[in-house]
Amino acid sequence: MSIISIATIIDGSTITSTNPQTITFLNHQLVCIDNSGYIDRILSPNDTDYEAVKATAKRKQQLLSLNKDEYLLPGFIDLHIHAPQWPNAGLALDRSLNEWLNTYTFPLEAKYQEIDFAKSVYNNLVQELVNNGTTTALYFGTIHNQANLELARACNRHQQRGFIGQVTMDNREQTPGYYRDRSAQKAITKAETFIHQLMDFNKTALLHQTPVITPRFVPSCTPESLKGLGQLARQYDLPIQSHCSESDWENNYALENYHQRDAMVLDQFGLLTNKTIMAHGTLLNQSDLDLFKKAGVAIAHCPISNAYFGNAVLSVSQILEQHLKIGLGTDISGGYSPSLYRNINQAIVSSRMLHDGVDSSLPPARRGTKVAALTAKNAFYLATVGGAESLHLKTGQINPGYLADFQIVQAPYPAFMQQTTDDIFEKLMYHTTKDNITHVFVQGKLAKEGHYATQR
Amino acid sequence: MSIISIATIIDGSTITSTNPQTITFLNHQLVCIDNSGYIDRILSPNDTDYEAVKATAKRKQQLLSLNKDEYLLPGFIDLHIHAPQWPNAGLALDRSLNEWLNTYTFPLEAKYQEIDFAKSVYNNLVQELVNNGTTTALYFGTIHNQANLELARACNRHQQRGFIGQVTMDNREQTPGYYRDRSAQKAITKAETFIHQLMDFNKTALLHQTPVITPRFVPSCTPESLKGLGQLARQYDLPIQSHCSESDWENNYALENYHQRDAMVLDQFGLLTNKTIMAHGTLLNQSDLDLFKKAGVAIAHCPISNAYFGNAVLSVSQILEQHLKIGLGTDISGGYSPSLYRNINQAIVSSRMLHDGVDSSLPPARRGTKVAALTAKNAFYLATVGGAESLHLKTGQINPGYLADFQIVQAPYPAFMQQTTDDIFEKLMYHTTKDNITHVFVQGKLAKEGHYATQR
Ligand SMILES: [Zn+2]
Ligand SMILES: [Zn+2]
Repeated sequence: MSIISIATIIDGSTITSTNPQTITFLNHQLVCIDNSGYIDRILSPNDTDYEAVKATAKRKQQLLSLNKDEYLLPGFIDLHIHAPQWPNAGLALDRSLNEWLNTYTFPLEAKYQEIDFAKSVYNNLVQELVNNGTTTALYFGTIHNQANLELARACNRHQQRGFIGQVTMDNREQTPGYYRDRSAQKAITKAETFIHQLMDFNKTALLHQTPVITPRFVPSCTPESLKGLGQLARQYDLPIQSHCSESDWENNYALENYHQRDAMVLDQFGLLTNKTIMAHGTLLNQSDLDLFKKAGVAIAHCPISNAYFGNAVLSVSQILEQHLKIGLGTDISGGYSPSLYRNINQAIVSSRMLHDGVDSSLPPARRGTKVAALTAKNAFYLATVGGAESLHLKTGQINPGYLADFQIVQAPYPAFMQQTTDDIFEKLMYHTTKDNITHVFVQGKLAKEGHYATQR
Repeated sequence: MSIISIATIIDGSTITSTNPQTITFLNHQLVCIDNSGYIDRILSPNDTDYEAVKATAKRKQQLLSLNKDEYLLPGFIDLHIHAPQWPNAGLALDRSLNEWLNTYTFPLEAKYQEIDFAKSVYNNLVQELVNNGTTTALYFGTIHNQANLELARACNRHQQRGFIGQVTMDNREQTPGYYRDRSAQKAITKAETFIHQLMDFNKTALLHQTPVITPRFVPSCTPESLKGLGQLARQYDLPIQSHCSESDWENNYALENYHQRDAMVLDQFGLLTNKTIMAHGTLLNQSDLDLFKKAGVAIAHCPISNAYFGNAVLSVSQILEQHLKIGLGTDISGGYSPSLYRNINQAIVSSRMLHDGVDSSLPPARRGTKVAALTAKNAFYLATVGGAESLHLKTGQINPGYLADFQIVQAPYPAFMQQTTDDIFEKLMYHTTKDNITHVFVQGKLAKEGHYATQR
């Protein structure tokens, strides 16, 4: 996969979110990419210079024409993923959170002091995500600066826009001795060092990688480190990520130890800002959501992971109705799949269970909730526009002025008969695997090149 | 995909279900297949003639040696799938059952009077299922004899063991005029004709295809047709399939129209036998399950479909505890995926939601149920042994005397570090797509040949 300049004009069918409820599906578009990797303009066949622009691009070999069964979609944004947990994706998912963390997750994360291990895992993971159409990812790393820099290098090498969190975890009562920051002060110093290391790295990087303030979650941090991280975030104006009200256990931890709800604890340390992304939130109540709304906090919905560790289903449609920012995350390895398509599927399926209920011994009226189920269009919005808004990025849409972050997807199955654009869209959402994603572009540059689309 | 004779001895790691809770994972096995396509014997390195048998097979070019990251698994059994609905897989899943049936499903099924359409869809579907590791499938066809015969031909051509149901639906109040059996008598005659047609077909077929008595479900049949089908099943000693207590609507239909539970209605017409497979059953109660147990009825659990149309989650672990027969189905196109791996994943995820509950506004003690969540091993059992027992087939296990129905799966991702056999197994269950399935064998013959395993 070499990073080469691409044809500057893509000719084919485009699918993009218009709003949480609807998509725009257009045929025969000419998507013109400028030299900075942004979409300059988009021409339709009835635009006067359509034919001239197409002919010129063809002559200059700058035209990439999609096949009839290929579609141009925005790249996906993975709004919550633990990069170091990739080797454990799919493992030990029948264990309790406690056993999963202490027997599987912490020992694995501790291994990232070995730089060669970090390099091999991170290169494989970033390539895998790009192959699955994920052009931007918000990562949890580990507590190791050098390994986190390897993650930045892997993102740069495989052409992915990374947001990279140096993880802070200094609470002696909730973290193991072999994997813990030595003190709040040392943790803050290390987090600040990482910010400078990544700023240096960016001076020569092809693609900007953003440092993210990352307290693991309230239980694993001391009040001192939470306070210091809040100050760092303000001082450098950086994004913040953590977990909030993911499970009954986490929810109760804040109540017992701070006599406050999880969200309030984070807020009092300055960690709920317009640049904050909180993972999961399955147990957030309306007052938490009001606080998020007021502060501008975004939610990373991780439907696969929540089935294992979330103890409930997030009311996504209600959150969309309240106009909070919300995107989609894989949460490797709480979730098993690196594909946001699989998470789109599970977001819909989980929402139907929240609506219908699960326990057949209850009468229908008491079995479910009033929360509306998600459509494929809702979930596509989360994986594109929702994620982009959460990170304040001009991506996730095929519109002029937006980053040329794309995936070209070939219809996974034959049509057999006349299909509406909605039919085509739904089949793409339900059936696409990485093998159907023939090309991926990030900021106008090829990050994956497949076999099907033809240069004509 | 040519159907050629295979190497008669496979050399590598084998994974098979021991019982619903455990698997047997062995390295360096020699699986010897006899000329009838059954497993003759399995040798381990400490067996005295291991080296001699291996050397002879190698010399005769009858040895297929798996690579280090490849595993021999039993082929899967899809215990419930509507072949004609394949073109709609993934479509219209946000509609009500009523709209889904009348606007999408019935019009599509009616098209199978066109034989060319049937041929093209069925060949594509069967090939797709085989590529996904499904070596046996229990199909609903349509009401059209000729199209159902095309399905049998497709199974034979692509080397899959088919159980094929000529669908009966003659109730004028619950079926559309353009897609309905003209009368109970005509429906029964047609069903009997199909039995004879398939018996004739089998005289020259490479692989036996089995006719299945198939009332669509109680609402779409008249008492006369249900009665006639029960008699046909007894007369020809054939398997029976239908849907039972799939949704609140279906459950209530029997109560209102027969003043009995759905299962009782089917039983009174002789349709609950030791060869019966009932799909879904999300709303079965304990008395229904007792009736199933007594009659020997098996359940086809379809977890993806149930999220859309089942109104609840089936208590699979309780059914396993009661030693009822139960397997796994895709229920295309109520379920969107042709892959039983995706259904294994959803079976686990759904069972966790049944255990934990979904509604965060309830306290944990009232949110969930006491029903134990499924493990990957439980779900693997369903897709192999459970399905085989339901169909009275000697398949689904890698043991002497069983059919040589296999899939060879290559580990989808690198290991990165030391893995236990449980780790390897769980990763296969969660990550395998058709692209990782390099070979499929049915009754000892190659049905799919990939690129990875080497003849050595
Ligand atoms: Zn997480
Ligand atoms: Zn069905």
